[in-house]
This record gives sequence, C-alpha cells and structure tokens, in this order.
Amino acid sequence: MSFSDISFMKRALALAENALPNCPPNPAVGCVIVKDRKVIGEGFTQKTGEAHAEIMALRDAQSRGESVEGATVYVSLEPCSHYGRTPPCALALINAKVGRVVAALKDPNPAVAGRGLKMLEEKGVQVESGICAEEAEEMNIGFLKRMRTGLPFVRSKIAMSLDGDIALSNGQSKWITGKLAREDGQMWRARAGAILTGSSTVAVDNPQLNVRLPDVQRQPLRVIVDSHLTLNPELRIFETGPVLLVCSRYDIVRAQVFEDMGVEVLELPGADGKVDLQALIKELARREINEIHVEAGPKLNGALTELGLIDEYLIYMAPKLLGEGMRAFRLPSFHNMEAVPQLEFKSMQKVGEDVRFQLRPLK
Amino acid sequence: MSFSDISFMKRALALAENALPNCPPNPAVGCVIVKDRKVIGEGFTQKTGEAHAEIMALRDAQSRGESVEGATVYVSLEPCSHYGRTPPCALALINAKVGRVVAALKDPNPAVAGRGLKMLEEKGVQVESGICAEEAEEMNIGFLKRMRTGLPFVRSKIAMSLDGDIALSNGQSKWITGKLAREDGQMWRARAGAILTGSSTVAVDNPQLNVRLPDVQRQPLRVIVDSHLTLNPELRIFETGPVLLVCSRYDIVRAQVFEDMGVEVLELPGADGKVDLQALIKELARREINEIHVEAGPKLNGALTELGLIDEYLIYMAPKLLGEGMRAFRLPSFHNMEAVPQLEFKSMQKVGEDVRFQLRPLK
Repeated sequence: MSFSDISFMKRALALAENALPNCPPNPAVGCVIVKDRKVIGEGFTQKTGEAHAEIMALRDAQSRGESVEGATVYVSLEPCSHYGRTPPCALALINAKVGRVVAALKDPNPAVAGRGLKMLEEKGVQVESGICAEEAEEMNIGFLKRMRTGLPFVRSKIAMSLDGDIALSNGQSKWITGKLAREDGQMWRARAGAILTGSSTVAVDNPQLNVRLPDVQRQPLRVIVDSHLTLNPELRIFETGPVLLVCSRYDIVRAQVFEDMGVEVLELPGADGKVDLQALIKELARREINEIHVEAGPKLNGALTELGLIDEYLIYMAPKLLGEGMRAFRLPSFHNMEAVPQLEFKSMQKVGEDVRFQLRPLK
Repeated sequence: MSFSDISFMKRALALAENALPNCPPNPAVGCVIVKDRKVIGEGFTQKTGEAHAEIMALRDAQSRGESVEGATVYVSLEPCSHYGRTPPCALALINAKVGRVVAALKDPNPAVAGRGLKMLEEKGVQVESGICAEEAEEMNIGFLKRMRTGLPFVRSKIAMSLDGDIALSNGQSKWITGKLAREDGQMWRARAGAILTGSSTVAVDNPQLNVRLPDVQRQPLRVIVDSHLTLNPELRIFETGPVLLVCSRYDIVRAQVFEDMGVEVLELPGADGKVDLQALIKELARREINEIHVEAGPKLNGALTELGLIDEYLIYMAPKLLGEGMRAFRLPSFHNMEAVPQLEFKSMQKVGEDVRFQLRPLK
C-alpha cells in the first residue's frame, strides 16, 4: 500500500458516489484503471442490469485508445465472479490482461465472497484488498449488511428542534430545518431502496416522499404502515411511483380501492392488531432492499427503536426551541438510566445553520 | 501584525485561562513580555485585589534577572489606566520603560476605555490593538458585556438526551452525560460569578452547586429562585459558601431561619407572585457578577428563554433516548414557525461520548 494507492482508491470511491441513487439493489462501486501513474479509465456501477464499474472503466480506457495490459485496477468492492444479471467482472479483467487489482473490500455476497480475487490470482493477476476499507463499508453499508445478515440497514431520518420536537403542537413542521439540510436529506432518501413511513405522517403532512433531485433515474419504493387501511386514496403519495401499503388486517373492500390504483397491499399481522414490523423488514430484505430510509413520526420511530430495528439515526437538528410541540419519539417511561436506549455519535457536522448527526446503537 | 505577534498573543490568552476561576469580577488577562523574540516574563490576573497580569509578568522578568527595557508586552486586554483595587498597569509599564504594548482588545470599562493605550502612547510607547480580538472577546464575554451594557452574560448549562430530556419521569438525572462532560461543566461553573437555579432543582436533586476542581480559591455565589421560601434549610446547598435566596414575598418567619444560617434573603416581587427575573439579573450586575451560570430545570429555563435573558445555551447532549421524561424547557405552544425562539450554533465538539454545543440567540 502506498500514498498513490490510497489516492487512486479515494478517486474510485468518489466515482462510486455517482452510482448511489441509481444502482440499487447492486452495490455502488467505482473503478479507476491506472498505468504509469496515469488514469486511463474510470467508471461506476450503472443501473440494475447494466454494466458494473469495472466494465465501464475498461470501456472508458478503450474509448480513449489506451491499452490496459499490465495496468492496475482500483475498485471499491471485490470484482464479481458469478454470472448474475451481467457476466463476471473478474473474467473481463483477466481477458483484458490487467496486471494488478486493488479492492477496498472483499464482497460478502455469498456468490462472490473472495472468489473474485481468487479467480484473478489464479490467472496470475496480482491482488490486494483492504485499502480505504472503512469508507468503502460506509458507501455500501446496506448492501453489505444484507449480504452478511440477510437484513437491510435501517436509517431513520429525523428533522428536529434543539428541544427534540418534530412539529409544533398544531402539527406544522414546515420548516424546522433550513434549505441545505432538506436538500441533504434528499440525498440520503435517494440512495435508499425503500422509504418507510406511517399513516399519521402521510395523513397529516400529505407528503410525496419521492426523490426530487437531478440525474435520478429510480424512485425508492414508498412503504406505508397503515394497520387498518384508513388512508385516503386521494393523498399525493398514491399519485406516482411504486407504493407498498402494509396493514395488519386485509380488508378486501378497502384494499381493492388501492389495488385498482396499482398500489400493492400486504397483510403482516403482528401483536395488538398492529403491523409486524420485524416481518416487514424481512419482507423488504427479500425484495433486495439494502437500505430502508425511515421518515416517520413518533409512533413508528418509537416502535422501531423499542424493537431495536434502527441501525442509524440521521438527525438534522435546528437551533430552535419548539416548546410544547410533537416529540420525535414515542417511548415509554424508563425507570433507571441503564434501561434507556444507548446510542453513539458516528458523525456530526454543520449543514447550513443546522447540525447533522449520525448516531448508531451502542453495541 | 506578524505571525510571531499572533503566536505570543495566543500564549497570553493561554495564560489567561489560569485566571478564569479566581479573578472575577476582574477580567481574566494574560501577559507575555518578549525581548529579542524570547519570552522573558509571563503572568496572569490574580484573585481580586491582587496583582494584574502585567504586574505579574514584570515581576516574573525581574525574578529571572531580565531587563524589560525596550521589550514588547503582549496583553490580552488593554492595560488599566485607573487607580482601582490596584494602581494602573499602564503606569507600571511606562515606569519599566517597555518599548511596545500589543493588546488583543481595548477595555470597554468606562474607567479605562482606550485611556490605558493612550497613556502609554503619550509616553512614547508604541501601541497596537486588535490581535486575536475574537478569542479575547470570548475569554471575558461576561466582563465585556457588563462594561458595555451594565448587564451580565447569562449562560444556561443543560445536560440532556438526544430527545431533549433532562431527567427520567421519576426525576432521576444521574447521569445522563458522561464523566468528561460533567468535568467540562465544572470548568464553566468555575468561571461564573454566580450560579442560578430554581427551588425545584434544589429540592429534587439536593445539589451543592459548588466548584469541585483543584486550584480553585473562589466559590461562585449560589442564587436560588424560591418564590415562597419553601425550601428545606437542611438541604446540602445551604451547608457551605455564599447563598442568595430570592423570593417574591418576604415571609419574616421563613426568612429568619435562613438568615440565622448566614443565607441572604432578597425580595424581588414580579408579576403573578413570581420573582422578577429581570430585576434579579440587574441586581447581580450591581454586585459585579460578569457571568451567570444557570443550572436549572424546565420552569426557570423556560421563563428565562421567554424573557430573552439567556445569552448562551451550553448544551451537553448524550446519545441516549430518555422517552417520556422531564423536558429541558417549559415553553408555550407556538402557533407558527416564525414565533419560536431562534438560536444559532456557536460551537460544537465531542466531549467524551457526548456532544457539547454553544448556541446563542439569533440577533
């Protein structure tokens, strides 16, 4: 490992940023091909079913008239070794006669799991892995979690005041945070496979919960927990794109209205007449959802927290005091300090006039 | 101004840190005397009535056997020009025949206000000011505010959870934040002239609210808002040091018990049978309090916030969710987002596992 290895790998990771909104359920990968310390090809994962990062970089080198023979390939995730929606990238690199492949991370996907690098090594390609591994982990935290555990990564985004409110007592929440924070929130929404919310949020705010950013070719699945299918079908969220409505009791009359509109209705009964949230998370994993982006109110955030289902709290905190408003979490009274949910700060930064935190449950 | 000017002034500011707990009501000042780019004397403000920073630095140079003739003096606040508790420092510097005096800030004290530098200049000493002015402002924010406006700087310290609670529903608050955050809080407490709290906090937590740090020779005045003098005189806060008990109706029987213990009782009646908080702040200014450090519950913090009396919120936020506990602020319901108290983040940093913010009202 050298400084230039790190530099080229960071460039590969930077390229992967472009893939985030469009590549799910594939991981976002960037690739840089280097010969004589000069970049001769670059690429990142295209949308599902289209080319992976390595193929894009090989094509880029070819279109520049460069030979990749003996070149070093920096890739932010181990090249795949299996015939999936596309042929294996490891094979393409072998055929192109590259000299060295540096991967940030091994791919935990059971269909790859070290076999990509092994295939290369067996053909005489020099291989290395583990450079910038932490950034590479964060980049595909959902994909990697799903490959390792069979479950998606659940991130709950909450915009709140300093005193922990997400709305005034009259329900108004436009706007607690500033423009930059709201734009930043859109970026996180865009990389998710699904956006999860509750019926109260949909009924009160009438949101679209879609991605409104340039260069985005894919909309995440909107998933609404609506135990008794009480939502008004004329709400804006039902106007466009895919919606999954999850109830605890399938009422054929109510469901029919939604199904006729193209909205999928799913029954997942849990305890107390509520939706089984654990079953829902598993169902979304089955649908190849890597990251679930929660944008919900106190009930759903409280319930998910109590079940230990949130992997990351993405908090935008505005320097305001909302007083007797609506709190971010509906949680019970705890009777001793050891019983409360303990998190840890993963990051913090200013975003405009607001502050953004990532917090994760303390292991 | 040069890089070395900045370096020496930062050293003077660093020295002033030592003065913070013991110098009030004097400002915390540091002084560095430099000759041929070498530090030959250093000092900082001693406790009230004892030597100022410049005198300490002159003595230090003398004790090292160094001549200060023609030397440059870096001082984090303009040297005083008046006979106060001590003779004027400007005169001492003139008598010592220093060549140049660099001050971070002019002293807004009406008894000085530029006259210190002018006195030096008239005697042929080269003078300059404004180097590291912002750090110098923060260092003595309370003294400077009181000199400029006649009012102290009010800082409210609040240790809370991510969801804005300062205690569990059963009142337990030990401990929300970690050891490092609590030690950091002691540092801020130590620099204050007074600690302000309410009767509920004293009754429920039975705190001492004193400074428990090494090298501290002074205890801030503890000020308790107890409208009806209902506190139990056996509480720990009354065991040591100065306490000012502020009520809205002076009940001679109740007051006598406290006064016999050496506790001062002050009547400051306001509206609704409550203590007049604005009058209290003014009274503390009259007593030469520069910084008031509030450690209080939701009622007092809410009331001070509504009156616009808090200059800084010093928030220690723990990565925990306390659920249905006690909130940090008792504030009314606001009906639109424009009506809520608007602050701005002045600083943020990790302190152990917690995060510390300084926020100030948006001007």
